[in-house]
Amino acid sequence: MADRLHRVVVLGGGFGGISAVDTLKRADVEITIIDRRNHHLFQPLLYQVATAALDTSQVAWTIRALMRNRPKVKTLMGTVTDIDTEKREVHLEDESTVPYHSLIISTGSRHDYFGNDHWEELAPGLKTLEDAVAIRRQVLMSFEAAEREPDPQKQKALMTFAIVGAGPTGVELAGAIIELAKESLRDEYRSIDPRNARVVLIEGGDQVLGPFDDELSEYAKQALEKRGVEVVLNQLVSAIDEDGLDYGEERLEAKTVVWAAGVRASPAARWLGVEADKAGRVPVNEDLSVKGFENVFCVGDTASMKAPDGSPVPGIADAAKQSGRHAANMVLARLGGEPTKPFAYKHKGDLATIGKRAAAVDLGWIKLKGKLAWWVWGIAHIYFLIDARNRIQVILSWLFIYLTGRRGAQLISQGPAAEPDPMEEVTDEHHDVDPADTGDEPARASGG
Amino acid sequence: MADRLHRVVVLGGGFGGISAVDTLKRADVEITIIDRRNHHLFQPLLYQVATAALDTSQVAWTIRALMRNRPKVKTLMGTVTDIDTEKREVHLEDESTVPYHSLIISTGSRHDYFGNDHWEELAPGLKTLEDAVAIRRQVLMSFEAAEREPDPQKQKALMTFAIVGAGPTGVELAGAIIELAKESLRDEYRSIDPRNARVVLIEGGDQVLGPFDDELSEYAKQALEKRGVEVVLNQLVSAIDEDGLDYGEERLEAKTVVWAAGVRASPAARWLGVEADKAGRVPVNEDLSVKGFENVFCVGDTASMKAPDGSPVPGIADAAKQSGRHAANMVLARLGGEPTKPFAYKHKGDLATIGKRAAAVDLGWIKLKGKLAWWVWGIAHIYFLIDARNRIQVILSWLFIYLTGRRGAQLISQGPAAEPDPMEEVTDEHHDVDPADTGDEPARASGG
Repeated sequence: MADRLHRVVVLGGGFGGISAVDTLKRADVEITIIDRRNHHLFQPLLYQVATAALDTSQVAWTIRALMRNRPKVKTLMGTVTDIDTEKREVHLEDESTVPYHSLIISTGSRHDYFGNDHWEELAPGLKTLEDAVAIRRQVLMSFEAAEREPDPQKQKALMTFAIVGAGPTGVELAGAIIELAKESLRDEYRSIDPRNARVVLIEGGDQVLGPFDDELSEYAKQALEKRGVEVVLNQLVSAIDEDGLDYGEERLEAKTVVWAAGVRASPAARWLGVEADKAGRVPVNEDLSVKGFENVFCVGDTASMKAPDGSPVPGIADAAKQSGRHAANMVLARLGGEPTKPFAYKHKGDLATIGKRAAAVDLGWIKLKGKLAWWVWGIAHIYFLIDARNRIQVILSWLFIYLTGRRGAQLISQGPAAEPDPMEEVTDEHHDVDPADTGDEPARASGG
Repeated sequence: MADRLHRVVVLGGGFGGISAVDTLKRADVEITIIDRRNHHLFQPLLYQVATAALDTSQVAWTIRALMRNRPKVKTLMGTVTDIDTEKREVHLEDESTVPYHSLIISTGSRHDYFGNDHWEELAPGLKTLEDAVAIRRQVLMSFEAAEREPDPQKQKALMTFAIVGAGPTGVELAGAIIELAKESLRDEYRSIDPRNARVVLIEGGDQVLGPFDDELSEYAKQALEKRGVEVVLNQLVSAIDEDGLDYGEERLEAKTVVWAAGVRASPAARWLGVEADKAGRVPVNEDLSVKGFENVFCVGDTASMKAPDGSPVPGIADAAKQSGRHAANMVLARLGGEPTKPFAYKHKGDLATIGKRAAAVDLGWIKLKGKLAWWVWGIAHIYFLIDARNRIQVILSWLFIYLTGRRGAQLISQGPAAEPDPMEEVTDEHHDVDPADTGDEPARASGG
């Protein structure tokens, strides 16, 4: 029976989890990969879904499809509730348990509102496909509402977009929203001019793209400003409400606030019963095993990892991939009776795009900016996409935007459960109708 | 001032509304098009979104983008609550009013549950992008749940898909779901074999594709059965519940039921204060004006229209287009002081696809089935797509499916507001956690 095989359970189908499974694929082990969603997400391009350049299926693949040709890999869609490290079992929400011999945890991170968790409602972050679709809807609906709004003050607030945090996600979002407003939406409105939209990027530190070389940070700031983004440095947001936010001594009226300022690890530490660091991450040994559990590994954003020079490993896709691969190799080393090795993170570089023909690329040994960096950024991202279909479709979408300035995915879709009314197009009022008539009102099936 | 121009208001951005605006584009009139969604939808391919072959942006375009180069056309996203035919004003949900001189109503239809409106929750229909994404999620989640389900009875019910109504939508959905199960998902599961999925198509009439030529209907039935679809004729569904449905003397355990059995017009009759026919449609004069209101026209699924031979005009895209164009021409005729003419509907044909290399095409003067019909169907649909980007992307998606059997859009996305938990990947339990820890729980911004 297969029961005699070593069972590796991988939690999370992000970059860390997928690369762990990849590394294990030729070994004689049984693998189960568990994720609460059914898809792997190419997060570096997620901001393009949020800004209507790409559609969801261009940046995501079902984990099952990725595992199609690996009969030894079982994919489970499920939500972890706990881990029993004594019995070596993962507990899922549907009350099933999944036993393991080795466990690799790569469950990623979520936004951190630094103690102001009620801000999440007011200032959504960008981590999932649903986040991206929600931000896209919020941005497009703001222009729709502005078109109908007679009060110029309110119109202005609707057309003001604040982004908190000027790391790569914040910078890319800011650049893409200003481009959407000034180029893609330009001719689509009659009462407003979308080119008057304000995009304000607020950063607590003293430069945008903090981890990049200073010269590139300065370039990115200037490139953003040249495009019309207002960059505010050295300012912490002190309050967010439905009409805008406060920072320093300032008040900004902005109906849309997007949060790109910090992340907190998934609750793996709680599942394991170990103490997390202040970002919620699990402390790991040099070989990425969790202190006290030699058969449990934590990787990616979930783990508090150090590079060989003692600096923290950044929360980027490539770090998740490298650590996922390392953990898988350590599982195999243990199986082969070999000693484990310390994880040697190698930082390959940082990339961020600002807009058409403008990006910053810092590979350490070489720093690029402007048009050349933009090409490097684009080619690198196409290269890292998972399959040919997506590569071709993303290239086509980009080409279309590049040539026409128009964006193909400007759709506002209600979430099915959020949808108040099922009428196809223009429809009737919800509340003051003849009660005999309300029979055809919604109560939409939530569809699973 | 522009106030002197004749103001035409078009309600609905479906096929009827868009073709009305198209017809008016060279006339010296002011046009406002109002829809509660921001997009025009290519409904004939919507079932392909529901079955993971295409993504939402491939079958929809924002109305604004379609109107980009028409400065005389104003697009409003808004929900009609009433029409004041005395004052000639459309009232919107946000309490604004839109005055008109001429009004063209093309607000489409929604499913009709024949008095059993609570079935909507249990058996969603397919009319909107949200419907399609909900059905896609429901179908894919059923396989996911079946993979985890130990009870063989429950597993069987999860893998049984009932479709009520065997018109083109029902037939196309049935063919696509069986293809999804038998081909696309085939190698993706370990505990279940998706090829064991049952698709049951239940029709009250005595043939599938009722409006088609008998020979084509018989062909379609055989083609469906050859692919594994169970076709049940002459049976009315008498009950639907969470575990399945009853028809005739039979009980079918099916966790997924999709409704494709009937439509009811949008509530335009109520807005106008006129009596609707039994399908909720507005009775119209021969020239498509509403009885009693010579400056108000109803077209498409909203209107009860007759063909020159006295037969009812079918609720298909081309009928909406023809009637929208006619209504717009009648507005122009009146403006020019000319008499209006009766609407002369010309039925060009019916098309439905069953699966790979199988379709039925009935153009009256020629009837096609099988491979040739499938090519005609595919080319016709590509031709009618609105722009080059979509054409290329749909062709690519189809080519990819044709060559690999895989579908690119098998993503399960939670509706943002429906989403219980924002954790990126595997995440913690919702209820029995340390209360001090729930700070990072959701309360997701609904995003507009």
